[in-house]
Amino acid sequence: MNLQNRFTAAFALLFCFLLTSAASANHPPVAAKAPYVSPFAAKADEGMWTYDNVPLKILKEKFGFTPTQEWLDNVRLSSVRFNDGGSGSFVSATGLVMTNHHVASGQLAKLSTKERDLLATGYYADKPEKELKCADLELNVLMSMENVTDRVSAAAKGAANAQEALRARNAEIEKIQKESTDKTGLRSDVVDLYRGGEYWLYRYKKYTDVRLVFAPEKQIAYFGGDPDNFTYPRFDLDCTFFRVYDGGKPVKPERFLKWNNAGPQENDLVFVSGHPGSTNRLNTFAQFEFNRDYFYPARLKRFGKILEILREFGSKNDESKRRSQDLYFSISNAEKASKGEFEGLNSKSIAEQCRRNEEALRNAVAAMQSEAQAQYADAWGMVENTIAKEKTMLNNPIASSLVNLIGQATYAQGFMRFAAEMAKPDSLRNDGYHENQLNELKFTLLSPAPVYPDLEEALMTGMLKFAVQELGSTHAVVSAILCGRTPELAAKDIIGNSKLYDLDYRTKLFEGRDKAVNAASDSVFALVRRVMPALRAMNGQAAQEVSAPRAEALRKIAQARFAVYGKNQYPDATFTLRLSYGQVKGYAMNGTLAPWKTTLYGLFDRAASFDNKGDFMLPKRFWDRKDKLTMTTPVNYVTTCDIIGGNSGSPVVNTKGELVGLIFDGNIESLPNRFVYNSDAARSVIVHPAFMMEAMRKVYDAEKLAKEIEGK
Amino acid sequence: MNLQNRFTAAFALLFCFLLTSAASANHPPVAAKAPYVSPFAAKADEGMWTYDNVPLKILKEKFGFTPTQEWLDNVRLSSVRFNDGGSGSFVSATGLVMTNHHVASGQLAKLSTKERDLLATGYYADKPEKELKCADLELNVLMSMENVTDRVSAAAKGAANAQEALRARNAEIEKIQKESTDKTGLRSDVVDLYRGGEYWLYRYKKYTDVRLVFAPEKQIAYFGGDPDNFTYPRFDLDCTFFRVYDGGKPVKPERFLKWNNAGPQENDLVFVSGHPGSTNRLNTFAQFEFNRDYFYPARLKRFGKILEILREFGSKNDESKRRSQDLYFSISNAEKASKGEFEGLNSKSIAEQCRRNEEALRNAVAAMQSEAQAQYADAWGMVENTIAKEKTMLNNPIASSLVNLIGQATYAQGFMRFAAEMAKPDSLRNDGYHENQLNELKFTLLSPAPVYPDLEEALMTGMLKFAVQELGSTHAVVSAILCGRTPELAAKDIIGNSKLYDLDYRTKLFEGRDKAVNAASDSVFALVRRVMPALRAMNGQAAQEVSAPRAEALRKIAQARFAVYGKNQYPDATFTLRLSYGQVKGYAMNGTLAPWKTTLYGLFDRAASFDNKGDFMLPKRFWDRKDKLTMTTPVNYVTTCDIIGGNSGSPVVNTKGELVGLIFDGNIESLPNRFVYNSDAARSVIVHPAFMMEAMRKVYDAEKLAKEIEGK
Repeated sequence: MNLQNRFTAAFALLFCFLLTSAASANHPPVAAKAPYVSPFAAKADEGMWTYDNVPLKILKEKFGFTPTQEWLDNVRLSSVRFNDGGSGSFVSATGLVMTNHHVASGQLAKLSTKERDLLATGYYADKPEKELKCADLELNVLMSMENVTDRVSAAAKGAANAQEALRARNAEIEKIQKESTDKTGLRSDVVDLYRGGEYWLYRYKKYTDVRLVFAPEKQIAYFGGDPDNFTYPRFDLDCTFFRVYDGGKPVKPERFLKWNNAGPQENDLVFVSGHPGSTNRLNTFAQFEFNRDYFYPARLKRFGKILEILREFGSKNDESKRRSQDLYFSISNAEKASKGEFEGLNSKSIAEQCRRNEEALRNAVAAMQSEAQAQYADAWGMVENTIAKEKTMLNNPIASSLVNLIGQATYAQGFMRFAAEMAKPDSLRNDGYHENQLNELKFTLLSPAPVYPDLEEALMTGMLKFAVQELGSTHAVVSAILCGRTPELAAKDIIGNSKLYDLDYRTKLFEGRDKAVNAASDSVFALVRRVMPALRAMNGQAAQEVSAPRAEALRKIAQARFAVYGKNQYPDATFTLRLSYGQVKGYAMNGTLAPWKTTLYGLFDRAASFDNKGDFMLPKRFWDRKDKLTMTTPVNYVTTCDIIGGNSGSPVVNTKGELVGLIFDGNIESLPNRFVYNSDAARSVIVHPAFMMEAMRKVYDAEKLAKEIEGK
Repeated sequence: MNLQNRFTAAFALLFCFLLTSAASANHPPVAAKAPYVSPFAAKADEGMWTYDNVPLKILKEKFGFTPTQEWLDNVRLSSVRFNDGGSGSFVSATGLVMTNHHVASGQLAKLSTKERDLLATGYYADKPEKELKCADLELNVLMSMENVTDRVSAAAKGAANAQEALRARNAEIEKIQKESTDKTGLRSDVVDLYRGGEYWLYRYKKYTDVRLVFAPEKQIAYFGGDPDNFTYPRFDLDCTFFRVYDGGKPVKPERFLKWNNAGPQENDLVFVSGHPGSTNRLNTFAQFEFNRDYFYPARLKRFGKILEILREFGSKNDESKRRSQDLYFSISNAEKASKGEFEGLNSKSIAEQCRRNEEALRNAVAAMQSEAQAQYADAWGMVENTIAKEKTMLNNPIASSLVNLIGQATYAQGFMRFAAEMAKPDSLRNDGYHENQLNELKFTLLSPAPVYPDLEEALMTGMLKFAVQELGSTHAVVSAILCGRTPELAAKDIIGNSKLYDLDYRTKLFEGRDKAVNAASDSVFALVRRVMPALRAMNGQAAQEVSAPRAEALRKIAQARFAVYGKNQYPDATFTLRLSYGQVKGYAMNGTLAPWKTTLYGLFDRAASFDNKGDFMLPKRFWDRKDKLTMTTPVNYVTTCDIIGGNSGSPVVNTKGELVGLIFDGNIESLPNRFVYNSDAARSVIVHPAFMMEAMRKVYDAEKLAKEIEGK
């Protein structure tokens, strides 16, 4: 699983329908920032806790451990946010930052050239001058947290209505942020936690001169590829090391984590300090049931259809198989994630947990004084109203996919946005479109990744047929594409007359800017211009009838929860720094036991057992150096710590505050954690420090880096 | 999974309720000998085919391979039946027979002494005089097959009614067998295939002088223990080699399989030649639904209750945990098997396959002429009637377990049978009780395995409470045990006053024979005497109302199937020689892929990843010799071949008729194959020949044996 919150631009362009559908009307990431209470927290290793509210009582009772303030400060100040969607940590006195390879891979791609493919070969800078500076990577370290709830709330006092109150609060937040930045020079963000239960001013030290020191090949960082993604036992060297500079010199960070090469033992208590992106644990039980009975079945049916189309296309010959297989694997992987979540929704015990959570809260609300009660009591009904509406929109994503699934149509959308921005003076353009950012934009619009018109036509034909069946040919989006033609003919006309697959053509459009784009008569441009109004209307209706009122209702429920439980809970994930705790522990799997760790023996076994082919091909240098390796070296291990996307790259620390691992994935049983945390078999998957050290020393000849990390 | 059909006597005594409940009224092994047709045989690698009816057309169409008669003769004459429930094969010109360690383990236990625990240490006879002769092992080789259907059928011609016809057929069968034995000196069995569709005379060469040559430690033969049992990826050296003697000299077998150390490649066509014990593929769809909705839920509830009692007992202290854990793991393992089968029953696609199979057959019957139709048409209704009856008997096994689950009560039953036989003159005793067999009986009745009265009392208390809840305290069996006491008091009285846990006491009973047993006033003897009449009445009713009429109905259905499909099908398993075919193939598992093979790297990984503890402790000699081993050597691999219990020890052969593997298990996804064959993820699990050779040569210093096997 990509625990990253972000996705590379190219990936977004092609797959945004996959990545955003989870966060559509059903559970918008913005609307999900609400608190959650666990009546089971003492039993399960649950929670993504803010640093001001670490569950000391649970830790004491369950593990006999109480972190000191110094321990907490040390871990917090060593934790690093990768602002494009991941986490990391300082691991040396001279500014080394460790994260996942898959968090770094966007930067690795940008640092690559025709002659130097860093994803394929890996990279090691054995002296400072070889360290490669990243173009646009911002890292943040949380320096301080200040509760500003009173000030924000006071600003809204006497407001005539809710909207005015919101405006007043937002104005005050802006003011607080500006004051703080002016005063401290630090990046200052006011964070809304517990959905308005609390507001906190988070001040970050910001680093923008970040240089690549070490990255292994993707082949070993993502060993096992899409098949092994989200699973365990696992064997990935998913790490990359950067060095942070300030004023042209390596930063001496205030704190860094001391490297503990031995790592933990089974059952040890460990912590994860990182930036979980978003969770949907505030969902009402009605939403849980809706997801289970409507949303996921529709989504899985859609995935199944796409995969069916791709299989049929791929069965024609070897070349068509080759052309379709990347997309096939990506969508299989998305399907795998959805199936994992769907299984959680279908678990009776998880449903029961969700139902009981809601029951407890609603009973507490019912016991409130009538005035307080009136504030919250209608919220569940409001959510149910939005669900009734959403049931009529279940197949909206099919309509969206008619554009988003087609590579050339997403290029057309990208160019049209580009043209709109280019028509403005630089100062008025949106972020990402300023003159000095256009080089970055090329990664997206002028990607050399091949687009195959025959595959595009097959996809469009198949999805149009599916849309006719599920939405009807009179649906606004469908009819705007068909224009009275059959699906076959429409797809043939549209794809057959487009040149957007051609990099030269796209290069000319890019160079000709808005003028060239607006003049383009390409058939896919025409399609997108024709379809966008209908798509926008469809999405607008969903926002108005579902997303907006639901967000309002969930906010009420969140506030009720805060009123009832106060801070005996943690807020839903908000991509701000959190501390999770848990134990190093194997689990029951596939009829047997999954061990708490894997070893180098297992890495070589997995390669050899697949005849060292495809996703399971081990880089040659591992085979060459195998006799030097200590084969019992732990490779990956698992804990019960509560994590989710955004936690990628988070450090795992022990009770001494030492670094004992690097988070990079969750197992397939952890996917339902999006809705309800469950520790029976859900596990976070971690790179063991000894594996990194063994590889650096014996495979990558990076002794100098290993010594720096060990503090020698 | 024990693919063995048999169980050791001691095991049977304690766990017969587990092993026989599957074959109870619900699907009696005798009643299950019926044909099955697969409309999907061309797609799936289905079928346990008799050697006279190998599916040549399918093999030709799907694989372009047609075995010659010489190929078939070679494989058949190399195949060996282990009459206590497994399979094997000749693998050298000098009488070496290979089977599984778990098929041989009963013999290994019998060959062990206080000073020489062969299960713990393994064994290798590096010269003939060291080869250890087994006490009671009979091996059979199928020399010829003769269709005697006409003769058997003719005998029943003109019979007044069905019962007389049956008698006439049986008399003719006896006659054929005797004639053949007299004439050829071979063991001669008439086999009923396709439930009376055909009768075949199978003649076997019989070997009774069988000597142990090589067995590894159980620790590596059954590496991974109960947790890994039924699962894959797997790492077991589950082999044992015997040598067959005749007239005091090693036998020169007519044929033997040439050893192919390289083994197969992925996707290769391979065959399994062995003796599947029994399948239930003839079940009607109503039975399928009954199993899914009633039988398995009741069984799983019962297992759950036993495990709950054991957990509670084990939670008291370390000693109680130690005392209960063997039974806990065994029952967990039985539960695992049942859950695997239950999952298959709950699979929509498997249910649909079963439903369609029945529909096709019933449609074909409906299209028959009315006279033929009348013969079969009421059979499905007859089965449904028996199901209605069985629904009222779902909890019978709880009553049985009140005796069978208690070790001392099963001892009491064993001694009472022993006493009854001892009272007869030797010539009239049942097999197993003759004077020259009493030494073997000691393994059962005088087992030194400890029995813990505190555990027995906890089990009896818990199961009595459960019985009161599920059956009521007035149930004949329950009330005969309680005698008006509470469950606690009854268990305390009965277990507290028994000495059957004491080996000395049992030794005295054994030595005192029927006199001593009949005079015994032990409280558990008293219990068994009191309860047996009620238990017998209960079981008698089940036999009369369910088993007998159902067997008759299933026989009709089997005959209908034979009438419709003739020999375009294979008969249900009958522990006679069968040929299965399939491909070497990985499969989708746990969200990722299971490889087609595992390697020595993986064996060491699995040991190291569990810190070389418990079931995952690798024998020290493997660690000592690890640097000598070629770590990429394949260990186990999987195929789609259709197998079931009884196939343990079967050779896997390639299209050249060479030995390329040794069957030892099925994966957890294969458990539903008891009902309907499914090849998506169901796999047979095989020891790779290269693993055996590598271990013999480099770990066990058995170079001489390795050379003999290689024919050098």
